[in-house]
Amino acid sequence: MKIRVYYEDTDSGGVVYHSTYLNFCERARSEVFFQKGMLPEGENSHFVVKHIEADYMKPAKLGDQIDVITNILDIKNASVLLRQEIFKENAKLFSMKVQVVYLKKGKPSRMTDELKRFFEEFDLTEA
Amino acid sequence: MKIRVYYEDTDSGGVVYHSTYLNFCERARSEVFFQKGMLPEGENSHFVVKHIEADYMKPAKLGDQIDVITNILDIKNASVLLRQEIFKENAKLFSMKVQVVYLKKGKPSRMTDELKRFFEEFDLTEA
Amino acid sequence: MKIRVYYEDTDSGGVVYHSTYLNFCERARSEVFFQKGMLPEGENSHFVVKHIEADYMKPAKLGDQIDVITNILDIKNASVLLRQEIFKENAKLFSMKVQVVYLKKGKPSRMTDELKRFFEEFDLTEA
Amino acid sequence: MKIRVYYEDTDSGGVVYHSTYLNFCERARSEVFFQKGMLPEGENSHFVVKHIEADYMKPAKLGDQIDVITNILDIKNASVLLRQEIFKENAKLFSMKVQVVYLKKGKPSRMTDELKRFFEEFDLTEA
Repeated sequence: MKIRVYYEDTDSGGVVYHSTYLNFCERARSEVFFQKGMLPEGENSHFVVKHIEADYMKPAKLGDQIDVITNILDIKNASVLLRQEIFKENAKLFSMKVQVVYLKKGKPSRMTDELKRFFEEFDLTEA
Repeated sequence: MKIRVYYEDTDSGGVVYHSTYLNFCERARSEVFFQKGMLPEGENSHFVVKHIEADYMKPAKLGDQIDVITNILDIKNASVLLRQEIFKENAKLFSMKVQVVYLKKGKPSRMTDELKRFFEEFDLTEA
Repeated sequence: MKIRVYYEDTDSGGVVYHSTYLNFCERARSEVFFQKGMLPEGENSHFVVKHIEADYMKPAKLGDQIDVITNILDIKNASVLLRQEIFKENAKLFSMKVQVVYLKKGKPSRMTDELKRFFEEFDLTEA
Repeated sequence: MKIRVYYEDTDSGGVVYHSTYLNFCERARSEVFFQKGMLPEGENSHFVVKHIEADYMKPAKLGDQIDVITNILDIKNASVLLRQEIFKENAKLFSMKVQVVYLKKGKPSRMTDELKRFFEEFDLTEA
């Protein structure tokens, strides 16, 4: 997924604000759903971030075109572990592992079979 | 209402990002409710911004302490017109008129008497 | 310019946060420069927003694909007046007039001929 | 440090957007400097986030008053390791370890003695 860096993403340090990289990764996770005409949430269900480990290598700056690469590392009954990396051309700027948990009526819950399949097929279908 | 400017509020131009002044004003509008132990929304009701006229005089920057001054200009059945100004010490940085509309189940609706009184008493009670 | 609405753009009211529409418009203004391999800022110069008049018609929500249409209304020596409108399919969601001023070393300054030509040719070149 | 949750901090899931907790922690780190009349950046120097490990326990929502507690775990020549936790009353909502690196002219550099002392005295001086 390609993302452009705009003024709103930067801070007065001249580069992208540190938490904005997490936003870029979240856009990529949601976009996977949008591309299939789905929403990442249902009537009473949605995903929440449970754990993040993030490394910052190099900064992105205004006007940069960056790529977010998403890989699924593990699928459990109620959660998914992903690796998401941000590149500018061939340079890796950012890398994180993020665990998201499926909530139904506010409680961690077993994902539907449809959702599990959705994630299992993800690495194959994504370019 | 006093607000501190943090990195997240700035952009790579070195000063506060233009739309963030609207956020500061919205914080002030919501804080009026929070201060009374209320929320600016009910079960099926909330306020939305309908119209804004904003003037930018001088920029705020990282670490600044700014004041948001809110005055009510007009109260109608389903909407309120406010003037909000942002100062740094005695210098005016920003000024806007904003019209907010009361929605119930998504439709402009007559405010409850309690809400109308809340706004009518606002200028007197605010410091 | 096409923009997708992500979680970060929404608030707990369920729709896009009011100041985020200004961000979308700013992305469109910057993208005009990026598309030509330019930056909207030079060594000591950049544009700042001076005045905004905005009308909110309908809300955008998570997953929406919206279009930002930018037209130039007037070009002065040191400032440009634009109209920017946001559509979802054929419905107009948002409309604003925004005046941006060209600053050099922090002071309103006459734009370079290159910049003026850039804006004069804008309406013709944009799809 | 006390922080109020406003609409801009939430998303359409109804709670605070996941990366906003990082913003709250950054505010607390900067506020330590502001309280002493300092800025967290110098002429050619500033801090950048290098590594983050974050756990999300419970969500914060609109109107909540939360506390950010900051502790310094380790001070090296060019970096500082901090633990930052967010509480709502007695409930822990969020916890992270964050490593920030001191950059001078864009390169990791030995902190000045003044800065090192500033961090060494931090835990004692903070309430």
